Amino acid sequence: MPTEVYIMNYPWPEPGTPLDQIATPMPVIDEDRLAANIARVQAYCDAQGKAFRPHIKTHKIAAVARQQIEAGAVGLNCQKVTEAEVFADAGFDDILITYNILGPVKLARLKALNARVSKLAVVADSETTVSGLALTFDAERPLTVLIECDTGAKRCGVQTPEQAVALAEKISAAPGLRFGGIMTYPAIGGAEAVEEFMATTMSLLSGKGIECPVRSSGGSPDLFSAHLVPSATEHRAGTYVYNDRSMVRAGHCTPDDLAMHILATVVSKPAADRAVLDCGSKALTSDLLGFSDYGSLVGFEGARIVSLSEEHAVVDLSGCAVPFAEIGQIVQVVPNHTCVVTNLFDRMVFHRNGIVTRVENVDARGTVW
Amino acid sequence: MPTEVYIMNYPWPEPGTPLDQIATPMPVIDEDRLAANIARVQAYCDAQGKAFRPHIKTHKIAAVARQQIEAGAVGLNCQKVTEAEVFADAGFDDILITYNILGPVKLARLKALNARVSKLAVVADSETTVSGLALTFDAERPLTVLIECDTGAKRCGVQTPEQAVALAEKISAAPGLRFGGIMTYPAIGGAEAVEEFMATTMSLLSGKGIECPVRSSGGSPDLFSAHLVPSATEHRAGTYVYNDRSMVRAGHCTPDDLAMHILATVVSKPAADRAVLDCGSKALTSDLLGFSDYGSLVGFEGARIVSLSEEHAVVDLSGCAVPFAEIGQIVQVVPNHTCVVTNLFDRMVFHRNGIVTRVENVDARGTVW
Repeated sequence: MPTEVYIMNYPWPEPGTPLDQIATPMPVIDEDRLAANIARVQAYCDAQGKAFRPHIKTHKIAAVARQQIEAGAVGLNCQKVTEAEVFADAGFDDILITYNILGPVKLARLKALNARVSKLAVVADSETTVSGLALTFDAERPLTVLIECDTGAKRCGVQTPEQAVALAEKISAAPGLRFGGIMTYPAIGGAEAVEEFMATTMSLLSGKGIECPVRSSGGSPDLFSAHLVPSATEHRAGTYVYNDRSMVRAGHCTPDDLAMHILATVVSKPAADRAVLDCGSKALTSDLLGFSDYGSLVGFEGARIVSLSEEHAVVDLSGCAVPFAEIGQIVQVVPNHTCVVTNLFDRMVFHRNGIVTRVENVDARGTVW
Repeated sequence: MPTEVYIMNYPWPEPGTPLDQIATPMPVIDEDRLAANIARVQAYCDAQGKAFRPHIKTHKIAAVARQQIEAGAVGLNCQKVTEAEVFADAGFDDILITYNILGPVKLARLKALNARVSKLAVVADSETTVSGLALTFDAERPLTVLIECDTGAKRCGVQTPEQAVALAEKISAAPGLRFGGIMTYPAIGGAEAVEEFMATTMSLLSGKGIECPVRSSGGSPDLFSAHLVPSATEHRAGTYVYNDRSMVRAGHCTPDDLAMHILATVVSKPAADRAVLDCGSKALTSDLLGFSDYGSLVGFEGARIVSLSEEHAVVDLSGCAVPFAEIGQIVQVVPNHTCVVTNLFDRMVFHRNGIVTRVENVDARGTVW
């Protein structure tokens, strides 16, 4: 059984290092844009009277989560038990895991986590999940469980308010569980469906004498729709903290709000219409999110990253309006999807105006379950 | 500056543990299939009289590389300086880095690596790359450089044999460099083009009195085409060691040769035609490789993984011929592309007949540059 894991043996830059002196590919985070993104979405939720619970999946860094809490967030949203453990270790005491937790290994870990996090909650969308939780937890230290509702995104979630009520009754009847409310990850443009599902469920629950304290909605694709869901008490989002190409397309931010760029070096220009960068799928991932290419190149409009292999990004220059960068020069790529980039790097480099300010461990990288 | 990186705090299974007792999502490697895959491709290269140089990107594990060398491989193929460092640390002394190395940080690391690896070589496809190498290395400890040739894959590589010769002359003229030969990553079905490019280049080089000792071809998409390239001395491949769905489609293996499966738990069955697994893009990646779905489900023909988010795989059951697994049950997914899965996990679990045999660190995970 190995006991040590290799960490990329990289001379991580000291504060004060100019970005053009660090080796690529490397994502870098603009401190001022990061702070402005945190402030803007918090202010929006404050103005709507919603509690804001950022999803840590985008940054996976305790220090950034601390910035979000200091700005006014009520707690954190995690997706996996191991993610929540990382943030519990870092001292966070209000964590919602928006996932069905199943199986003896994870349930045992969840129980240990619940014993040390003052406000921990999970979601469930089936009797099977609720039964496993009910058998694991007891009245001495009960676990709060919200019901995940499918309001149109067609991922997880009970399909109807009636199913939600039936599951709420099952949760309420379990000595080791507390019914915490309802949660949804809405479809894009699905705010009206969220409101209808929530209002109906609350009404049905009220008829049964069951309180529904938390109604949690949100999600980055519908970031600024909180005002369309009056029944919701809580808003969640993750991607806004760094933003990415998909958030610009959605109209949730402008290019000036992009806090993450991937620095990449031109490693080859084999033909007049082709360049190759060193940011392959190990740096950008293959996430297209509906785009037909793998990221946008700052300052080279019309240059398109048309294919990726693990270590190569092939750029089609045939539509590029300006002369492209030379071999050895560093370019900046805006990723289609920032969250998945974060998961590929052990550490993250932050900067202000191109000068490194700090290097943070990506604390929850690789927490797959 | 942080000095420690969080490693997934997972109770990694001891040898003897049955696979159904480990938490998911988790890729697992079948020892017998692994050994058979290594033996089969080595035997093919031996029969063709080609040196075989496996690409470590698929496994990134020193212990598996050792199995490949013990089977008869001449050395290793890496893509990045940091990858090569990991394998040099593990004692491997014949490494080809098939990448243009550029920039002062990487060149300094490459020089240090060359001082301690007895047979190290890199490739170059431009005067810029060769100039950087020539300025870095000296006659006391020269670096071997091969020329990367584009024989139709349209990634990196010089475009013509004449360009290859011009670059070979530049390499030969640098006191710190040794011209090692030519290398290509062929297009699918591109063996004839490889042979033509190699034969022409060798003839032109011969006319200049320049020896071309190594002619390296291969690549998993064209795994069993070595016999179509008589001019090649060396064959390279990576994916064959585990195999994946793309290799089955290419006819390079059968489903019985698939050494990697991803174990995943059914976490939700919200509707009759939909199930959700816990293997999202953080386990499978979004690599489609030309498929229209994100992996195949063993034993559930017609069930299709139609969308991924980071922690969820949505399975369309509408075409599934048999009743699907229940919530909480573990299923096996064949990934589209095995190499990219490897890069997402700190450790890899090996088994024989469903019983864990060993857990190996994925030594070179995260070595992005």
